Order: sequence, then C-alpha cells, then structure tokens
Amino acid sequence: MKRVYNFNPGPATLPIEVLKEAQAEFLDFENSGMSITEISHRSKPYEKVHNEAKADILELMQLGDDYEVLFIQGGASLQFAMIPLNFATKENPGSYALSGTFSSNAYKEAEILGVGKIAASTKDGGFKRVPRQDELNIEKNSAYFHVCYNNTIYGTEYHYIPETGGVPLFADMSSDMLSRPVDFKKFSLIYAGVQKNLGPAGVVIVVAKKSLIEKSPENLPTMLRYDTFYKKNSLYNTPPAFSIYMVGKVVRWIKESGGLEEMAKRNSLKAKILYDAIDSSGGFYAGHAEKDSRSLMNVTFRLPNEELEKKFVAEALENNLSGVKGHRSVGGMRASIYNAMPVEGAEALAEFMKKFQKEN
Amino acid sequence: MKRVYNFNPGPATLPIEVLKEAQAEFLDFENSGMSITEISHRSKPYEKVHNEAKADILELMQLGDDYEVLFIQGGASLQFAMIPLNFATKENPGSYALSGTFSSNAYKEAEILGVGKIAASTKDGGFKRVPRQDELNIEKNSAYFHVCYNNTIYGTEYHYIPETGGVPLFADMSSDMLSRPVDFKKFSLIYAGVQKNLGPAGVVIVVAKKSLIEKSPENLPTMLRYDTFYKKNSLYNTPPAFSIYMVGKVVRWIKESGGLEEMAKRNSLKAKILYDAIDSSGGFYAGHAEKDSRSLMNVTFRLPNEELEKKFVAEALENNLSGVKGHRSVGGMRASIYNAMPVEGAEALAEFMKKFQKEN
Repeated sequence: MKRVYNFNPGPATLPIEVLKEAQAEFLDFENSGMSITEISHRSKPYEKVHNEAKADILELMQLGDDYEVLFIQGGASLQFAMIPLNFATKENPGSYALSGTFSSNAYKEAEILGVGKIAASTKDGGFKRVPRQDELNIEKNSAYFHVCYNNTIYGTEYHYIPETGGVPLFADMSSDMLSRPVDFKKFSLIYAGVQKNLGPAGVVIVVAKKSLIEKSPENLPTMLRYDTFYKKNSLYNTPPAFSIYMVGKVVRWIKESGGLEEMAKRNSLKAKILYDAIDSSGGFYAGHAEKDSRSLMNVTFRLPNEELEKKFVAEALENNLSGVKGHRSVGGMRASIYNAMPVEGAEALAEFMKKFQKEN
Repeated sequence: MKRVYNFNPGPATLPIEVLKEAQAEFLDFENSGMSITEISHRSKPYEKVHNEAKADILELMQLGDDYEVLFIQGGASLQFAMIPLNFATKENPGSYALSGTFSSNAYKEAEILGVGKIAASTKDGGFKRVPRQDELNIEKNSAYFHVCYNNTIYGTEYHYIPETGGVPLFADMSSDMLSRPVDFKKFSLIYAGVQKNLGPAGVVIVVAKKSLIEKSPENLPTMLRYDTFYKKNSLYNTPPAFSIYMVGKVVRWIKESGGLEEMAKRNSLKAKILYDAIDSSGGFYAGHAEKDSRSLMNVTFRLPNEELEKKFVAEALENNLSGVKGHRSVGGMRASIYNAMPVEGAEALAEFMKKFQKEN
C-alpha cells in the first residue's frame, strides 16, 4: 500500500487508524449484516453513532447542554445563506469581518438578501492578516458578527476572540475546528465543513446555542431552517450517514489522542517546523501571512519565481509530498497541516524545502 | 462476515461486489497514496470519478447532451424547495400531483412560497394508488407539473408517463431511479436521493434539460441556484465525494449487469414473487396498493392484526430478513426490493411469509 503525506487543503488527510477501522468493518457494521452505508438512519446502531458523535463534539468543546450540535449538508457555502436567512433582517443586519475568500463569500450571501454590513476588511492589504480588535466596527443593532476564524486560502488565523459588545459571535471554523482549545462559550454559533480536520466531505457541523435555533422565521423553506434540524435531532430527512460515522471516529481519535490540548501541541509543533524553514531561508521562501496572523493549519509561502514554484510542486510529489500547490488567488505554495498530518510529514516537507533551496 | 437480506427503504442494500471493491481500495485509491475520502476534489483522479458517473447516468437514461447531471446535497427534501425557488412564481406556479408523503412535502414547500397548485390528489383514498391521467388538472400557465414517480411509503408507482399539454414534467424518482427503462426524454427535470437504488446517503442526482438550468432567478442564494451547479460542473464547492464515488460504482454495476432492461427484469420478478405471496394468502396478507399502481420497489402489506405484525417483524429478523417493518403512516410491512436486492432475497421472504401464515 502506498501512502503519501497529503498537504491538500480539503478534502484532506485523515488518521490512518480511523481509515483502517472503517475499512475493516465496511461490509458488516457491528454484526448487523450490513455496511454502514446500507444501514437505516432510523435504526438503533445508526442512532448510537449519530448521538455519540454529537456528545463527543460537545465534550471536546467543553460546552454544556445549552448548545446543540447539528449535522447539515450543502457545505459551509450553504451556511453562508442559511445564517442570514435565519437571523438577519434589514433592521438587524448581519455584520461581517472580511479576512479572505470564504468570509467574503459569506458576506456576499447576506448582501444578496440585502441584510449584510461590513464591520472590517483586510482586503486592501491582500488579506495578509485578520482584522485587529480595534478595527472592528460592529454596529449595536447587528443580528450577529461573523468571522472566518481560519482563512484556508491566505493562511491566516485569529489568535484572539473578538469582543462584540453583546452582539452574538458567529464563526466559520471549517479549517481549524477542534484543532486547538478555544473558549467556545464566547461563540453563539460555530460551523465547519468537516473535510479538513474532521472527516470526508459531505456534512457540516453546526454548534449553536439552543436558544438561537429553536425557532426560525416563518415561511422559510423546511431544509433552510435551523429549527428543522434542531427539533428532529438532524434526522428530519436521511442524513449523510457515512460522513457522520467517519466524523464520529475522527472525534473519538482526537479524544483518545489527548484532546484539543494535544492537538494544539502537535499542530503548533508542525507549524513551527514549517515557519522556521521559511524564516531561516534568507528570503528564498517568503511567507504570505503577517507573523501575528499566521495560521497553524495552512502555511502559505512563495518562491523567488513561478518557474521554481512549478519545479517545487513537481519535485515535492516525487518525494511523496502531495498537494502543496497554493490557491491561484495567492499563488505559490500552501501546506495544510490539519490534525491528522503527522509531525513526520511537516519534518519531511521542511527537509525537502532545505534541500530544494540548496539545489536551486 | 454476517450478511442479511436488507429490506430497508433507504439507506438500503447495495451490491456486494461494489462494497467489496470500495473496501479493497479504501486506503489507497488508484495508487494515489490516499483514500478516496482524503483526495482533493480538484484532482484529476477525482474528476475522472465525477465525470464518468455523470456520463454513465446519461447513457443508462439514453439522454443526449441537451441534458445535464448535477450532484447536489441536502436530500430530495432540499429539492422540494429549490424547484419552486428556481422555477415557480405567483403568475406561473408549480403544479403538483399528490400521491403520498413526499409528493405532499414537495407541494408544501411551494405552498410556503405561495407558488403551488394541486393538480390531483389521491389522499382521500388513503394514497392507495397514483392519480390517473384523466384526473390531472394541470393549468396551462404552470411552470411545471411535479410527480413523485414511486411512493416509498405507500408502495405505489406510476406505470404511465403523464401527458401535461406542454407543461414541463418534473419527477422525484428517489425510489425508482434507474430501476427500469423509462422514456426519460419526456421529463424536463428528474431528481433522486441516491440512498435507495444508487449509493450511500449524501447526494441527490438531478438530471435536467440544460435550457432549464442555465440561468436562475436573480437574488437567489448561490447554493440554491441550479445554475451554480450547472456552470461549475457541480464543483462550485467541495462535493460529497465519497457518495458520488459510490454512485459511480453502482451505476457501472448496473451497466455491466445488463442495464435498465436487466434491472427491470429482476425487479419485476422480485415484485411478482412477493405480490404472488400476498395474493395467494387468502387474505392473510393484504396489499396496501391497488393492483394497477403497485410499486416494483416497495411492497406494502398488512397482517390480520398488529400483534401478528410485531411477531412477523421479529421472526423475520431471526431469519436474516431485516427492515420489513412498514412506515407508521401505513402500518404493517414494507419490503423494499431495490436494484441491489437479489432475487434470492425476495424468494426467502416469500417462503418465510408462507411459513409464518401456516404457523399463525
């Protein structure tokens, strides 16, 4: 069996232990005589998977039963629309901090509905950092203040929790969900497409204060209402069972590995290895993000020219380092080092970077 | 390894050959060094999976390139909303035939938006049959006429293609998609949650005339617009890659098994075996559906009393016949015999039915 270090930004590398476990039981889940892909979502074995995943997520986030975990399809991109549809009005618009592509896309959906305001933007500086607290202009009447907590494409991340003056704080944590301890209680609604830190693509985890999601506006279609998912334990219709099952296994793997503290330790170490390789290159590698906004999940950097960048990608792949090409809007390289990327992967990439620099 | 006959209505039994193939390559997809659950949706190996699945679906349906296949998340229930949002207005409402739970749910979403009309309903008769052609009252100004082609809960199915007088024909085929040859060209838009005939839950296949989906109304959120999926080959955001990959395998299995003609042959035989067991029971088993509306996919029947029904479910399970309990709105039994249910499964259930009748 071939195994590469997979630095793709999502879908992304998953813990090999989890993959092996899923493979072993793929034809017969818990002696049911069925694959997990065939099993009824109304059956007891599936409900156990579903409810344990929810409980483990809340436990890792140290949230109590005033919060609910929802499983929703459609990707974070559908959340960009569901959030303003459920919460924003012209009188109480949603307030957005723009710190990259996805936060801008989130704002765009509120704008389409005529219910969005921009509280801050770092676009003029090329999204090299997230906004500072003193730059946030959150109007009192905002229904919520929305941030993208880690910006996958630009490789930046919030290292503080915004003070909102009482406005509910919403965060897209698609690319740093459960990668480090955060005081999640300060957030009213958090969502994450799972295909980066938590499982195969196909489900979004929404963690929200129950008080916020128990009643959605009248005349909103059933599948766009948070209260549909809340009232029916995310089982109003058939859920994406396999993705949720895998998320359950990954979340248990996080718990058994030592929880969010251990994830943070590993992720900081991996990030340090790569940022050190950049910072000690004498300018051969140039980091995109400003230092105090650097992401622990996505390390973005450029090489002296595009020709060398192409060569870097090709030679990296020959060395079993896959998926290091950056997003076209930033160019250069991006190494995504989510929870499941072993420290050895970051070491191998740093070593390759040094070798490549010497040779070019 | 234990293997039962799985008569659940969805998620449902899948071809064992497909499951074994997916299991074998689960850790290393086509020598990529990654699981299919980890692989980038922007990579060539994934794009091949995605595009081949689309092409095979069109080929099986004998549709040309005036049709497009979309992969959308959220289940058929989200389609219930997307259809009126994209096509219906107060001036040109959607027209609905109500033949069961899901067709009624589809209508409800149009009603919420104030753009739905009822063209026919068999609710008064307890949804024991689908409406006849002469009962369809489709107004000329309708944006579309919508049917649920097979009613999973009630066990009924259309055995004719409605004449609409020029109004575009839309069909929810979640439970009979690719189970038999149909003159699909007569339909303008067909959709199906895959978790019955085609794969694990997590994706809906929408097959639509390109002319219909190339432009959606202004100010509709991005993820609710068919044109978003059409213009970006269903890759605007991360697709539910594993579900699509499995659909691709199931569709290939259908092709290699002899296509829709062979599926129809097998499905008719399985249905005959079970309906014969009902009809020859002297009334011990009472079919729910009227004979000319009987579904080839979901065989619904009742026993003389609820006590016997409970006993039937329990003893069936002891005989490795799983998931025969009917939906609460009909009661009794339901045997779902989708493409992947072997003829031997139907035979085993019919045999059990005879034995159970003799003993009770």
